[in-house]
Amino acid sequence: MIILYDDRLIKREEANIDIEDRAYQFGDGIYEVIRVYHGIPFYLNEHLERFQKSADAIRLSLPYPMETLAQKLLDLARENQLEEGNLYLQLSRGTSPRSHAFPSDAKPLIIGYTQPDSRPLTALQNGVTAITDEDIRWLRCDIKSLNLLGAVLAKQKAVDHGAKEAILVRNGTVTEGSSTNIFMVKGQTLWTHPANHFILHGITRKITLQLAEYLGISVKLEPFSPSHLAEADEVFLTSTTMEVCPIVQIDGKAVGNGKPGPITRQLQKAFEKEIERVCQ
Amino acid sequence: MIILYDDRLIKREEANIDIEDRAYQFGDGIYEVIRVYHGIPFYLNEHLERFQKSADAIRLSLPYPMETLAQKLLDLARENQLEEGNLYLQLSRGTSPRSHAFPSDAKPLIIGYTQPDSRPLTALQNGVTAITDEDIRWLRCDIKSLNLLGAVLAKQKAVDHGAKEAILVRNGTVTEGSSTNIFMVKGQTLWTHPANHFILHGITRKITLQLAEYLGISVKLEPFSPSHLAEADEVFLTSTTMEVCPIVQIDGKAVGNGKPGPITRQLQKAFEKEIERVCQ
Repeated sequence: MIILYDDRLIKREEANIDIEDRAYQFGDGIYEVIRVYHGIPFYLNEHLERFQKSADAIRLSLPYPMETLAQKLLDLARENQLEEGNLYLQLSRGTSPRSHAFPSDAKPLIIGYTQPDSRPLTALQNGVTAITDEDIRWLRCDIKSLNLLGAVLAKQKAVDHGAKEAILVRNGTVTEGSSTNIFMVKGQTLWTHPANHFILHGITRKITLQLAEYLGISVKLEPFSPSHLAEADEVFLTSTTMEVCPIVQIDGKAVGNGKPGPITRQLQKAFEKEIERVCQ
Repeated sequence: MIILYDDRLIKREEANIDIEDRAYQFGDGIYEVIRVYHGIPFYLNEHLERFQKSADAIRLSLPYPMETLAQKLLDLARENQLEEGNLYLQLSRGTSPRSHAFPSDAKPLIIGYTQPDSRPLTALQNGVTAITDEDIRWLRCDIKSLNLLGAVLAKQKAVDHGAKEAILVRNGTVTEGSSTNIFMVKGQTLWTHPANHFILHGITRKITLQLAEYLGISVKLEPFSPSHLAEADEVFLTSTTMEVCPIVQIDGKAVGNGKPGPITRQLQKAFEKEIERVCQ
């Protein structure tokens, strides 16, 4: 496989990460995952804008211009003949003798690679199950950083319970999933957590909210409680790789009638159209 | 430099960390820093016990027995002729195609290396300055994990303010420093945060508490507020590399009379004796 290493496309086995790379020792870096449909990255600019925001939030500079990076990613996808799958992109603060504060001498390192992957059609059709779990992550979940251990532990707990996702709860409020944003429908209203420091500002979340507006679905950007969630008519998650995916069971209890609901289906269809519009 | 890579001592430039190493992408791993005085690791067993505890807490298995690891670290120190400095030791969950949940096929990877370093004698003599900052880290700070971005940002803020350390405050309570534990003295009583999920259970913290008991100093393991801290007679930090180090100024305001206090000095002397006892 060809990967992006700094500003070069090289063979994966030629890449070398140092043991004192700050991503390796501190998780001191940021990342993005970008979906590719029909060989075309979906909402690439939005992902790169968020990449820049995450970098700014931890005062990390890109080693070269964003326009160059965008072109390198397109080259990478083409070089690996990626038709369906993901582009993974990461920026580390670079390598320097270990010390917590920012190093003065390190050069930030970009790496990128491709993951061929098909769309999760069965999950999108039938829905997935979830558990709830305590949100123990840090207070800047809006930064797409490499400090993902809290998310890893929550996801693993879901897997241990035979579920696909862990829905996180902080101080009596549903924040988001371990790697997804969470929406619920009650009556004719769509609810999701507001985009503050407690959640990642998902690109798919944003697209979904735009589609909801376009479809005339009423939206509340307000936190809701686990008991509110338990009484929802519909629940779904959004993410770059899972798109708009119904959640049909939470903590062993059926959501609504246990089947994907009409508003979820409406948004899924609109999302599919958006994919075709952008990536045809 | 020779490093420990898995179970082998190899040249640093021969080591290769994969871009899909989980420490690199998720911070999915743990670490220890062990001080070496006169060529002898200080409280090695306690550090390895904590290493095991951190590993257990995130369900990570050591790739070989702890006794073997202890011997490898001694070999590493000897090989690099480390007289004064640190042993750095890290365990990653290993390399696997990126996905949040634990991989079934990854082999955990240990790396270790040496950092020659002299004792911080000037800081120990004159004390250091600190700022206070919000504790935005996750809720399992007792796990010595590689998710250190919150600590990195706090430390950098201290540096930006010309200070050595950031004292972290969560919900009105002083937890610990960005890479140290924090103690205060009021009257004849020593205070420090109890060893729960909000702080790292520092080895130097533990030794200091044992020395305080030995010296007949009264100790309260209770959280205290920033305003309580501001009225302290003495404040000091403890860490593996900083030992027992006075803090003489916080947020620009002198602690007590602005000089290291008598109880801090008493504990420093006792700690120095402990070094000589263990590592002579």
